[in-house]
Amino acid sequence: MSTSVAPNLVYAVSEQRQWDRLMELAQIGAITGADGSPGVNRACLTPGDRQARRLMIRWATDLGLTVSVDELGNLFLRHEGTEAGAAPVLTGSHMDTQPNGGRFDGIWGVVAGLEAVQAIREAGIATTRPIEVVAWTNEEGGRFAPGCMGSMAWAHHSPPNTWDGVTDPDGVTFRAALDEHLREEADLPRRDLGAHRPFAYVEAHIEQGPVLETEAKDIGVVTGIQGSRWFVVEIRGETAHAGTSPVSLRRDAVQDFIRAATALNALMSDPNDVLRFTIGRVEVLPGSSNTVADVVRFTIDFRHPDKEMLLTNGDAIENTIRTAVKNCDVTISERFHALPAAFDPLVMDAVEDAARSQGLSSARIPSGAFHDAQFVVPICPTGMIFVPSRKGISHNPAEYTEASQLANGARVLAATLVTLAGR
Amino acid sequence: MSTSVAPNLVYAVSEQRQWDRLMELAQIGAITGADGSPGVNRACLTPGDRQARRLMIRWATDLGLTVSVDELGNLFLRHEGTEAGAAPVLTGSHMDTQPNGGRFDGIWGVVAGLEAVQAIREAGIATTRPIEVVAWTNEEGGRFAPGCMGSMAWAHHSPPNTWDGVTDPDGVTFRAALDEHLREEADLPRRDLGAHRPFAYVEAHIEQGPVLETEAKDIGVVTGIQGSRWFVVEIRGETAHAGTSPVSLRRDAVQDFIRAATALNALMSDPNDVLRFTIGRVEVLPGSSNTVADVVRFTIDFRHPDKEMLLTNGDAIENTIRTAVKNCDVTISERFHALPAAFDPLVMDAVEDAARSQGLSSARIPSGAFHDAQFVVPICPTGMIFVPSRKGISHNPAEYTEASQLANGARVLAATLVTLAGR
Repeated sequence: MSTSVAPNLVYAVSEQRQWDRLMELAQIGAITGADGSPGVNRACLTPGDRQARRLMIRWATDLGLTVSVDELGNLFLRHEGTEAGAAPVLTGSHMDTQPNGGRFDGIWGVVAGLEAVQAIREAGIATTRPIEVVAWTNEEGGRFAPGCMGSMAWAHHSPPNTWDGVTDPDGVTFRAALDEHLREEADLPRRDLGAHRPFAYVEAHIEQGPVLETEAKDIGVVTGIQGSRWFVVEIRGETAHAGTSPVSLRRDAVQDFIRAATALNALMSDPNDVLRFTIGRVEVLPGSSNTVADVVRFTIDFRHPDKEMLLTNGDAIENTIRTAVKNCDVTISERFHALPAAFDPLVMDAVEDAARSQGLSSARIPSGAFHDAQFVVPICPTGMIFVPSRKGISHNPAEYTEASQLANGARVLAATLVTLAGR
Repeated sequence: MSTSVAPNLVYAVSEQRQWDRLMELAQIGAITGADGSPGVNRACLTPGDRQARRLMIRWATDLGLTVSVDELGNLFLRHEGTEAGAAPVLTGSHMDTQPNGGRFDGIWGVVAGLEAVQAIREAGIATTRPIEVVAWTNEEGGRFAPGCMGSMAWAHHSPPNTWDGVTDPDGVTFRAALDEHLREEADLPRRDLGAHRPFAYVEAHIEQGPVLETEAKDIGVVTGIQGSRWFVVEIRGETAHAGTSPVSLRRDAVQDFIRAATALNALMSDPNDVLRFTIGRVEVLPGSSNTVADVVRFTIDFRHPDKEMLLTNGDAIENTIRTAVKNCDVTISERFHALPAAFDPLVMDAVEDAARSQGLSSARIPSGAFHDAQFVVPICPTGMIFVPSRKGISHNPAEYTEASQLANGARVLAATLVTLAGR
């Protein structure tokens, strides 16, 4: 199989069909955003989730794919290859959304996988390896935290019963919701968790950031998922009367917060604009205009694709804050620590070649957000394809990618799958 | 009348009697603070307020003082002078408290006035001028905002019906509460609002700040009440995903808040530590750890005893913020603007002499907090006497001043009244 793509494969991808499927799926759990944008609220393992899966299954079976579900509810739609017993190429993403979510995050990766496979079949291309389209269970973590349970269990990152006791806001356990879900899908063939170790995995996803739009690129060749470290900091001083208390005698938590934030900004300064540093939550107590604040609690979200940088700068946070703070006490705790995941050149090169051969512009970029692909990395060569997100907006009904941009992504995915499934 | 005080006046002031009166009054509306300290919640124009006034009136009439009430409910307890028709020297403070208040703020100034007059009488000192002890209505503004209604109306700063429609948290209007109050005190003689324009006014009060304690001074000779300007600032940017959004493309309201606060700190830097600059309330929205914040609202409380400084620096706030903020929109509104009030050398010198002649240390300090004395300034020579506040704590049950420190204050007040009432 050559890396140059037969024109009929490119033309076999239907921009309209893919868009129509996305819009039909977006009716299930449809909501309207604050700005009037049509969004989706479709939590995992709900009737809406199942309704969307049934629709996907119908399209897949109409096409001749075979369906199976594993014990975590991960859904697989299989296109057979020509070589018996060959490890499949896996593609897909997730179908659940954030509570105030958009119409493209996750679901497009599953729909694009189906579109790519359909185009491959309609173009009459026989692949050596099977291709499987997967819909991972509970990527978002909005109903049951954390996210990525389906891919984590599949990849043996965590035992499948790890989250049995996790409850949703109504007190329903993950175990109970999953059991009900599997009963509702008892008519579908079951497969072992982690069966069919794939030859490679490639996930299509909207970027959820503004880089491709800003750089006017059609396709993001994703180099990996950056590492993250999350901290919670509490600065504790003493209240005082804003009129009577001399500034030199105060233990003002807001002023020490400003000192800490300024020092952290210096530590996290990055002329290459790769590092992500965010103080997103700040609480100030008692919150009275004429009282010096005694408590400031704030969060740090620090991400970087380079492991060394993540460890060096992350480890420097505590000392940076302690050195900066002048009058108050400080407690710092790390709440989350995930090392970067690097994608495989086999997949990155295949995506880049596919884009180039179709005359599409591309850029190698790291992913700022988490994805199921992160957990597939230890299992097989893994990569992702990004398409632009308008204004970088995601996790919001205003999330948008044009039909033509999504079609570009599906075409690149189709060609990538042909390449990988031909190896 | 000489400025050296007869020893019998100093000894006539009773530390124990004054303390016992304060403790008896503190039973009316007694509460317990978070740290177990005994505090007081006694809002103005409530049954508790009237009960405390009746107790004060009983002590005053037992002593031979005459009682009258004006149409704002301000209570006057009069000691006659030897010269018919001479303008009285006025002293006093307020009897209402903050909801979570202490046992000394306000009430001590009234009790000290009574103690001083009692000592003058018991020492057999005849003053040329009358001395009146006043309890101003609603200084705190906790039940009906703003505070200082009684002194403002008395001083013709505002017409007496200005606050008729102001309601308390239960929807009761100030007019209704005042009418009920005046009915309950209908047995007391009425006087015209603003009758008896005084020769001078001196108010004793706890410092409510840490300066006297820190400098180990017995008495504060208050030079005036600093001016205040209050602002509310809103910084408005755009939310973004903390993982995917490059820092260079963000409109991060927290980062612009840090820029604004840093620039304001530079503007408000004062090596003399006289200026008071406080950012006491900061709200950050949406307040999610992995979302770039789009809104920060914060307050500025800026105070200074010097009018020029208050105007110059206060007027520079808006431009300072606008210059500092980089990526967001800003709205700034001024919510309160009060010029400094300067006290009169006649009163300041009398207080300072009284302290010196009694062997007490004193310091000239401005008042950081508001007081009724502020509104008396345009009417007659005005001043205040401060005693130390432990750790500067006030508006809190933990507010504390030792009985001996309060006795020092009452002795200085007695001598000051003798001096002023002899002129």
